Order: sequence, then C-alpha cells, then structure tokens
Amino acid sequence: MPLRFAILGAGRIGQVHARAVAGNDNATLAAVHDPIDLAAGLVSDQYGADIRSVEDIAAAADIDAVILCTPTDLHAQQIELFARAGKAVFCEKPIDLVSGRVRDCLKVVEETEATLMVGFNRRFDPHFMGVRAAIADGRIGMPEMGIITSRDPGAPPGEYIKRSGGIFKDMMIHDFDMAVFLMGDMPTSVLATGSVLTDPQIATLGDYDSASAILRWEDGRQVSITNSRRAVYGYDQRVEIHGSEGMAAAENEHPVRIEVATADGYTRPPLHDFFMTRYVAAYANEINAFIAALGGETGGIPVGRDGLNALLIAEAALKSAQTSMAVDIPH
Amino acid sequence: MPLRFAILGAGRIGQVHARAVAGNDNATLAAVHDPIDLAAGLVSDQYGADIRSVEDIAAAADIDAVILCTPTDLHAQQIELFARAGKAVFCEKPIDLVSGRVRDCLKVVEETEATLMVGFNRRFDPHFMGVRAAIADGRIGMPEMGIITSRDPGAPPGEYIKRSGGIFKDMMIHDFDMAVFLMGDMPTSVLATGSVLTDPQIATLGDYDSASAILRWEDGRQVSITNSRRAVYGYDQRVEIHGSEGMAAAENEHPVRIEVATADGYTRPPLHDFFMTRYVAAYANEINAFIAALGGETGGIPVGRDGLNALLIAEAALKSAQTSMAVDIPH
Amino acid sequence: MPLRFAILGAGRIGQVHARAVAGNDNATLAAVHDPIDLAAGLVSDQYGADIRSVEDIAAAADIDAVILCTPTDLHAQQIELFARAGKAVFCEKPIDLVSGRVRDCLKVVEETEATLMVGFNRRFDPHFMGVRAAIADGRIGMPEMGIITSRDPGAPPGEYIKRSGGIFKDMMIHDFDMAVFLMGDMPTSVLATGSVLTDPQIATLGDYDSASAILRWEDGRQVSITNSRRAVYGYDQRVEIHGSEGMAAAENEHPVRIEVATADGYTRPPLHDFFMTRYVAAYANEINAFIAALGGETGGIPVGRDGLNALLIAEAALKSAQTSMAVDIPH
Amino acid sequence: MPLRFAILGAGRIGQVHARAVAGNDNATLAAVHDPIDLAAGLVSDQYGADIRSVEDIAAAADIDAVILCTPTDLHAQQIELFARAGKAVFCEKPIDLVSGRVRDCLKVVEETEATLMVGFNRRFDPHFMGVRAAIADGRIGMPEMGIITSRDPGAPPGEYIKRSGGIFKDMMIHDFDMAVFLMGDMPTSVLATGSVLTDPQIATLGDYDSASAILRWEDGRQVSITNSRRAVYGYDQRVEIHGSEGMAAAENEHPVRIEVATADGYTRPPLHDFFMTRYVAAYANEINAFIAALGGETGGIPVGRDGLNALLIAEAALKSAQTSMAVDIPH
Repeated sequence: MPLRFAILGAGRIGQVHARAVAGNDNATLAAVHDPIDLAAGLVSDQYGADIRSVEDIAAAADIDAVILCTPTDLHAQQIELFARAGKAVFCEKPIDLVSGRVRDCLKVVEETEATLMVGFNRRFDPHFMGVRAAIADGRIGMPEMGIITSRDPGAPPGEYIKRSGGIFKDMMIHDFDMAVFLMGDMPTSVLATGSVLTDPQIATLGDYDSASAILRWEDGRQVSITNSRRAVYGYDQRVEIHGSEGMAAAENEHPVRIEVATADGYTRPPLHDFFMTRYVAAYANEINAFIAALGGETGGIPVGRDGLNALLIAEAALKSAQTSMAVDIPH
Repeated sequence: MPLRFAILGAGRIGQVHARAVAGNDNATLAAVHDPIDLAAGLVSDQYGADIRSVEDIAAAADIDAVILCTPTDLHAQQIELFARAGKAVFCEKPIDLVSGRVRDCLKVVEETEATLMVGFNRRFDPHFMGVRAAIADGRIGMPEMGIITSRDPGAPPGEYIKRSGGIFKDMMIHDFDMAVFLMGDMPTSVLATGSVLTDPQIATLGDYDSASAILRWEDGRQVSITNSRRAVYGYDQRVEIHGSEGMAAAENEHPVRIEVATADGYTRPPLHDFFMTRYVAAYANEINAFIAALGGETGGIPVGRDGLNALLIAEAALKSAQTSMAVDIPH
Repeated sequence: MPLRFAILGAGRIGQVHARAVAGNDNATLAAVHDPIDLAAGLVSDQYGADIRSVEDIAAAADIDAVILCTPTDLHAQQIELFARAGKAVFCEKPIDLVSGRVRDCLKVVEETEATLMVGFNRRFDPHFMGVRAAIADGRIGMPEMGIITSRDPGAPPGEYIKRSGGIFKDMMIHDFDMAVFLMGDMPTSVLATGSVLTDPQIATLGDYDSASAILRWEDGRQVSITNSRRAVYGYDQRVEIHGSEGMAAAENEHPVRIEVATADGYTRPPLHDFFMTRYVAAYANEINAFIAALGGETGGIPVGRDGLNALLIAEAALKSAQTSMAVDIPH
Repeated sequence: MPLRFAILGAGRIGQVHARAVAGNDNATLAAVHDPIDLAAGLVSDQYGADIRSVEDIAAAADIDAVILCTPTDLHAQQIELFARAGKAVFCEKPIDLVSGRVRDCLKVVEETEATLMVGFNRRFDPHFMGVRAAIADGRIGMPEMGIITSRDPGAPPGEYIKRSGGIFKDMMIHDFDMAVFLMGDMPTSVLATGSVLTDPQIATLGDYDSASAILRWEDGRQVSITNSRRAVYGYDQRVEIHGSEGMAAAENEHPVRIEVATADGYTRPPLHDFFMTRYVAAYANEINAFIAALGGETGGIPVGRDGLNALLIAEAALKSAQTSMAVDIPH
C-alpha cells in the first residue's frame, strides 16, 4: 500500500514536493495544511489532498509521513510533534538557527525512534551525485582538497535576510553539507571571512553578502568555499574534489546548450536564474529517496545529525569571520 | 474550459503524451484507446481517462482533440477519420511512408479545415529552439550552410526496420525537417549515399545503417547530414548552422555534467542512451504547443505540409542513394 | 654532420620553414633563392644563408636538400630538376594542378630514387595527430565515418583564386588528404556540390566559395566534408572520425582560453584569424619530420603519391560538382 | 641599434631566455656566464655569445642589460651590482626570501635609477592577460572576488624545497602576484592554512605541500587561493575574477585538444606536465616586454616593488598558517 503523506506549508517548495509525492507510485498525498487558504486549496485541488489542521494531521491514523515546508522557527517544534505522533518527517533545512535547539530536537527524534530526513537537496543533484559516485568508486583516490563555489543570481529581500540567520547559516550551510558529504567526515576547524560588496542594506541587517571559508580536517585535508549573493550570469554552483589519484568536478548546468560564434567570439546563454529550476531534478530525487528510505531501502538520506553538523560548521564560520581567528568545530 | 483529449495508442510514447496532457492546466485527458487492454488500463488508472473504442472517440461530443500514437500504417486513415469528425489531431510522424498517400490525406485535412500537428518533436527541444531563435534574431545573418549529425546508440529490432521505410524515411527524416525548420524553406535537390557498416542483417532487410546526404537549395545554400545506427557513447544529436555573420550550434546534452581528471586525462560520462530521455523536454513542449495552438496561440507548430515536405526529401534522398545522382525534390 | 638546406621562395611560408631549419640541431640553412632580392636578403641576414641562383643550388655539392616555396606552376619542373641533381625535396602542395603532370613528375622522382615530401602540414598538427594516434591505438575500433569542417576567415584575393585551381584543388584538397590520412586508404567515389554564397566575384572567376562533399569507400565507409571561404569567428578547422568502438575528434584551437560571463551569457574569444598562426606547431613539426626522415627515421611523411591521391580526389569532386553525379576516383 | 644582453645562469630557464633575446629584432645576446662551463658553452655556441665572468659583464661597455637566472641567494647582490654598473636588470623571482633584504636591494635600485624587472612570467601568459584585459575593458565591472588554483604535477626534489622558502614563498607567491595584478591593488590581510598530504618527507623539511589562503582587501574584497604539490592530470593553473557585472576566467591549457568518446564516456588528454611547456608563450612574452620597456614603451612590467609586494603577502600567509589567525600585510 502506498505511503500516505501530508504536506505542511503549500508555498512554492511545498508545491514542488507535492508534485513529487503525487508522481511516486509508492506514495499518495493525503493531506495538506497551510495557514493561507488559497495555497492549501491549490494543492488540494490539483492532487486531491484533504485540507487539515496541524493537530488533525498529527492525530490522523491515515498519515504515515509529513513534509515540513513551514517557516524555520516552526521546524523544531513540528519535528518533535510529529515524531511523538509516530510520523516519519521530512524537514526543509535548517532544523533551527541555533545548534542547542537542534540538539534538543534531535533528542526527541532519537527517543521516539522517528525517521527524520533533512532537505539538503543538493545531495540529490545528478551532477553532485556523479562526483560523489566517482569518489566512492575510488576513481580519484583519497579525497584531499576541495573547491566549492556558490553564487546566487541576486540577494533575497531584506525581510528574508533578517530571519535567515545570515549568509553562513542560510547559504554556505549547503556548501558545508556538501563538503561533509563529499569528503566523508566532519572538518575540525574553519577559517572564514565575510563582507558586504553588493548591497549596503545587507550591512545594516548585520549580514554579509560575500563570504569565503577554508574548512580544515584533523589530518590536514582542506576545502575552500566562496559565496556571493550576486552572479549576473546566473545561478553558479560548482564543486571540485581533488584526491591522491585525480579530481572530480561538477560543472554548472546550462539550460540551453547552444553556442553562437560571431566576429565577437563564441557565446553561450547564461545559467539558470533560479534555484528551483536549477535543482528541479534534485528536488524530485530527494522526495523519492525519502519514500524509498521509508520503504526500507538503505542508501543514504541526510538525517538530523547532518543538519546539526552543517549548522555547527556555520556557527563556527560565523565566529571565525567575527574574530579573524580559526575556530574549532564542536562534535 | 480545458480541452478534452483522447489518446490512441498507450505505448511508451502514448504514456509520455498522456502525462503532458494531464500536466497542462488547459487540457484534460478524457479517453484512451489501445488494442492491448493492459496498456489502456495503465493510462486510464493513472489519469482517470475512460477506455473507449476508436469509433466512440470519433463520435464523442466530449472530445476536442486526439493524439495518434498508433502504428504508422493507421495514421493516414485515422487522421481522415478524426478530421471528418471535427477533432483536432496530433499525429506522430510520419503520416505515411508514401508521399502520394500523404497528399490524399492532407486534402481531407484541408477540406475539413481540421487542425493537424505532426510530431516533429525536435523542433521543441530547448537547444534546437535556441539555435532557431539565434537565427531568427539575426545573430548569424543569412543562414547559408549547415551540418547536422544524428547517431543512434544502436539499431532498432529487425521487425521495426522492416516496416520503418528505411533510414531516410525513419531516421534522417528528422534531420530533413530540422534543415527546413532552421534554413527557413525547402531545398531543391539532394545528393545521398547509404551503406551497411554496423550489422549485415540490415542489408538483408534492404536498408542502410549509415547514410550521408547533402541538401542543396536553389540559391546554392547547402546542408550536410550524417546518420548512423551506432554510437557507443550515446545518443548523438547535433546541429550547426552557418550564416553570413556567424554560426549557431546546438551541443549534445550530457545528463550528468561532471569531469573526472586522472593521469589518463579528463573524462566526462556518456550521452543519453535513449531518445526518450534525451527529448523529455521536447516531448512535453510539443504537446503544450499543440494545446496552445488549439487555444488560439499563433507561433508555429509543424503541420501536415511539414510532414509531407520531410517525406518528399526522404524519398528523393533514397532515390539519390540508389542512383548515385543528384535528385530534384518535388514541391 | 647537419644536413645542409636551401630554400627556394623566401615569402612568408619560406620564412617559416627557414626558422624551422635553423632551429633544428640536425640541419643548417646554407642557401636561399628568391627572385625578389629583398626577400632573399631578409632570410640571408637572419640565418646566415648564401643567396644563390636555382641552377647553382642544383649544382652545389654542399646542399643536401631543398625546400620549394615557389609558385605552384614551377613545382613539378623544380622537383624534377632537384631530384635529378640528387637532392631531397620538400615541396609545398600541390605538386601541380593537373594529375597527368603530377604523374609524369613522380616518374622522375621514382627513377631518381629521390626523397620527396609534400607539404600537407595538417598531418603534423598536434590535435589531428592526436586523432590519428587514437585511431592507431584502436581506441575507436575500425574507422567508419567522418565529418571534416574547414572554413577560412575570408576569401583570398581574386588574383590568387584565378591561379589556385579552384576550391576543391586549393582548399578541400587538405581535407581530402586528411580523410585518407585518418581513414587509412583511398576512397573510391565522391559526391560533391559547390556554390557561391559569399562573394559574387568568385563566380565570375569560375570558382565556388562554398562546397560540400561526401567521400565513399568501396566497403561503404563515408566521410562528409564542408568548406567555406567565410567564417567571421575565425579559422575553423575540425575533424571527427567515428569508428565501431567510438569517436575521435579534434576541436578548434582557441589562442586565448578565457571565458567572460555576464548577464548576456558566457563568451570566449574568436579562433585564430590566419592559417599561419593556427598551424604554427604543424609547420615546425613537418620540417622536423622531413629532417628526421632524411636522417633515416621511418614513421611517415606525406610523399608524392599522397599529393597525387589528394589531387585525384579533388579532380573527381570538381567533376561531381559540375555533373551532379557520383564520380569514381581513379587509382 | 639592438640592445646588448648578457645572461647569467645558463640552465634551463636561462636557455629559454637566451632564445627569446636572440629571436627579438631589437636585442642581441652578447655574453653569457655560468659557473658550469658546459652550460655556458651551449648557449655561447647556439647564439654566438661570448663567455665572460660576472665582473667583466658588470664592467663591460658593450652590455646594456642583464638577465639573472642565478640561484636565489645571489639575486639581491647581483641586482645591486648591475644596478650600480648602470645595467638594466631582469631578475627571476624572488629577489630574496626575506623582505628586509629585498627592501635594502630596492633602495639601491631606486638610488641608481636602474630598470629592474622581476620575472613574474604568468603576467605574460595569453590567457591570464586576456582576463586582465577583460577587467581593464570594464567587461565585468568592479572586481570583487577571485578564485585562483595552482596545482603542480608533483613536488620538486627535497634539495629544492629546502632552499625554496616554503610553499607560500616559492609557489603561492605566483598566485599572490596574480591576485594583485588582477584585482589592481594590495590586500590588507590574509588567512591561510597549510598541511602535508602528499609526501611525509616534506613535513620533515618544515614545509607544506597543500595550502589554502583567503586574501582580504580593506574594502572587503576577497580572493581564495589553493595550492597543491600534486596533480596527476597535469599542471593545473586557473584564475577566475568576479566583478559587479560578471566573471572573467582563464581555463587550463590542453596541449592536445582532442576528445575521444567511447562507451566509457568522453575523454580528453591530460594537461601539460611541466611549467616550461605550459608557459612557453609567457616566457617569450616577458622578455619581449622587457626589451620593449627598455626601448621606451610604457605599459607595464612587474618591477621590484611587485616582487616585494608578493613576498610581503607570502610572509604574512606563512605567519597566518602558523598562528591560525588573520595576519595584516604590511605596506
């Protein structure tokens, strides 16, 4: 029998996940919740899901799993609620902006033995998966160094930035997770710096729009990461890992692969201009992986500990940027 | 009110089109027909379409348009049937393997003023559309010459080849249509050659597995095309058009964009190994274009005349390969 | 002791070869001849070579080899002169514009047992050599089909075109030689077409500026070639050979490998704009190969027969373009 | 009249520079010095230069300029010697491994008004020059961030490492200079880390073989640099600069630009395996630039101050790696 899902939060990412659930033969979208009636109604109409309250979903016998696309400040308490109600939980990252709160939440998850998957979607991107597979297959030997580049087409609205936790917890956290995912274990210290280069308003919000970091592992391995909130040529997402026997790199994805050559040279169109078009395959893959994991398939989904790990690195990176010193990453 | 569709032929391509119809807000999949109950049932279950006979669909008041994914030898008569029944028709290419039969069919379409779209899916591929747009925008000046490459991962089964009409009508016909689509009008003669290089069985079926052609326009423009039924590195699909001011080229699509560098060099994964994964966007786009055209949007779908044109080129190419002479293409 | 060279014709290509001879430890440039004193003087000054007459060079005991960079209509008689004088001869292509004359010349070469190398410089380009090596190593299995693209930045002056023998003998002849070089043996027939698309003056000279051809081997192998006298983005030189186990392709050479990404997309600079910068390595390599061959190294230089072969294909291609029929290539 | 040059140090890099001087119409190679007679003799024979002592060259009236390819520990004193003797000086980097010694040397250069060029050859690489030109042309707006990657095929011998000053002063110093060259001015602080990942022997010599750094400018601009002494796929040299309006990147140079596609994917050959083949154009260009500068051409050669600047960054980076803190770069 297909797994019965509820989605909380029917905004744009909620709609993406709803489509993935509906398209999976082993799952069915049974319920949806959103404080905005119109949003809930849209998903309800399209996929035949009931509109229900959070409490009803938690109490329902006909719901096996929930997907949390709610605001970040609700994540931890909702994970706890549904874990205690015996539901499997998929939660968009981050679990919380403070690692202490995440630790408390994960204790509940552990006690209730609930399944919790954290939405590090990039782990399911075909290109990054290809890099991971190349490493796993031993093609580059032991991974030693890395270079990760993430550049957004433009900064999000000030309102978003205010509640985002800042560039390290909101944006570079994806790269921290990618570093752990590809290098295979946790770094032990971080050097980082941040500045405001694209929009002075971001400085008034106490955040950076440009940041660089070096992760360092106990045995000397190193990964360099750069982030910017500005990339006029599109959504720039690259990873390269260097090992003892070679390098594996994921290139940017060009939605239109043409080249026009004129007297001025060879020109290719820009990259995707939006993370949701860039990661369309990754979003579908991650929900399918969640459903497969609930069906007993082993093979790796990012769990609560992964969410905590990336946050711990982000907290240390922020502290490094503030103090101009290397900061140890707690375990 | 959404347009109500019926699909005839619920095999793999029928299922692809069913998904596209179901995913379009301006259309609904009302009926499906397939002589194999299981196939019809699959589509019926997934999209809530009624299973009906061909005659019922033709007679039905609640069907606006049909999509024909039936065997080629049924296309012409079914187009005529549904055109006379007042339905809009989307038909997979080719309309028929003989141009005389196609001409007769198109007369019926003309008399009944039916809308007929022919499934030249590649016109809706994002990369080829990009080349077309670059030409339309004047970026390469007047198009003058072209190079089109199509290579299949492997030959289809002998049974398929027998009824396919041969490499020029079955495979290179896509490239002939692409040449007309990108150059803007019909060539006037063709030089072609064919041979069997990959599988002697193909020779026993009276077909070629390798073919090259040069199309020539009245004013001297030239397009070179090469086809092979073998490409061990995947489904090779490239186009380049040279104009007075430059060149526009569509590159191959790599499903996984990674590069692994070792002492042996830099390696990227192979191409798609199947046309249905290579053209997944094109298939969705063409059905959406059909629905948009039925909704009154002008902007170009391949119609019956396009199907006839490509077939006329294919017939002339085959004759050229058989006679080792340039053959004029009738209009 | 180093081989002692004379160069006849001290124009731009003569100067390139002079530099190559001077830079080779096993050779020395002893003499130079050019009807224009200034040209001869330039080479003489730079490399310390004597200025001598053609007759003196032929009679000289201290000259081992000559390099002919003279006008085409002098090639055959000079080859004969120096062959009879016991010199090794490097001759720029073509030996002559008429195959009958070439056959007569090669008889003299054969009788005198002279070494004659023909300047098919592209065989010594590192990228085309790489393709050849990949084929020789068996990496793509048996070569079956090919696509060769040569596009010049612009047409040469009318005066040059008049005496060039036309696009097939002057330009596509390089591609014919490349096809033989890479496929390993001679094609047996050719289909070709030509037209004037870039400059009407070329038509008044009885030549084409745009041409396409299909070479066909007895066993069905096929190579498609396209040529144009116009490529605004630079000197376009590409080759790809398809075999039973894969493909080997030489890409264009970009003199500056940068990419600039802006809101308009990713742009790379144009190609070389001149064959002498494009083939700088090839020109040096071919003279070094000639010197090595004279020193007894076996390993392949293009000889008189190669020059004749390419010309035979060119003559057949021209006839095909004029008659719109396949033309057999004599052996 | 051509400028008369002397070369001190006739090893492999001295030979490269000798060829460049000999090939420049505005210069002549008059003298050579090397403590190893064989080395001096080789250059003397090939270019007709006299073999002379250091003192004779300094005292010679017929020498305008010297090129120092001597061991690093002789650089500063020889610069002073020849500056006082009224010669123009080209010196391979570094001037010295200690910034205080460099400052003293530069005082002599200033007092004597000598021309001193420091051999930061990468500034003359066509690809890096292209990036610089793109920035200068305003194509990417104001430069804000950068990513520089340098990876050597393998570590140099232990003897070399011992006297090299370590990875920051010997290897990353090129990247520090490149950062200043492309960003336009000096960074104000640096974060760095180093470790030994490829060869434990390097640790015993007190050096690193793997290093990462973040340069930071006063206004918040950031450049990330990674270095490794191991890259099995060849000599990896990449630069990308991000500005307010876009990005300019120099790609790696592949000596053979072919691609072989098989069932295993698309493979390109490795990179250059040696810095002298990778930078062959850069070495020629830098000597030509020196000669042009001596001839009065303005337009930028790296001078003593540039050598000092890069060393100051390297010293700060080493201190940062040792202390795990950001270190200010003195001016």
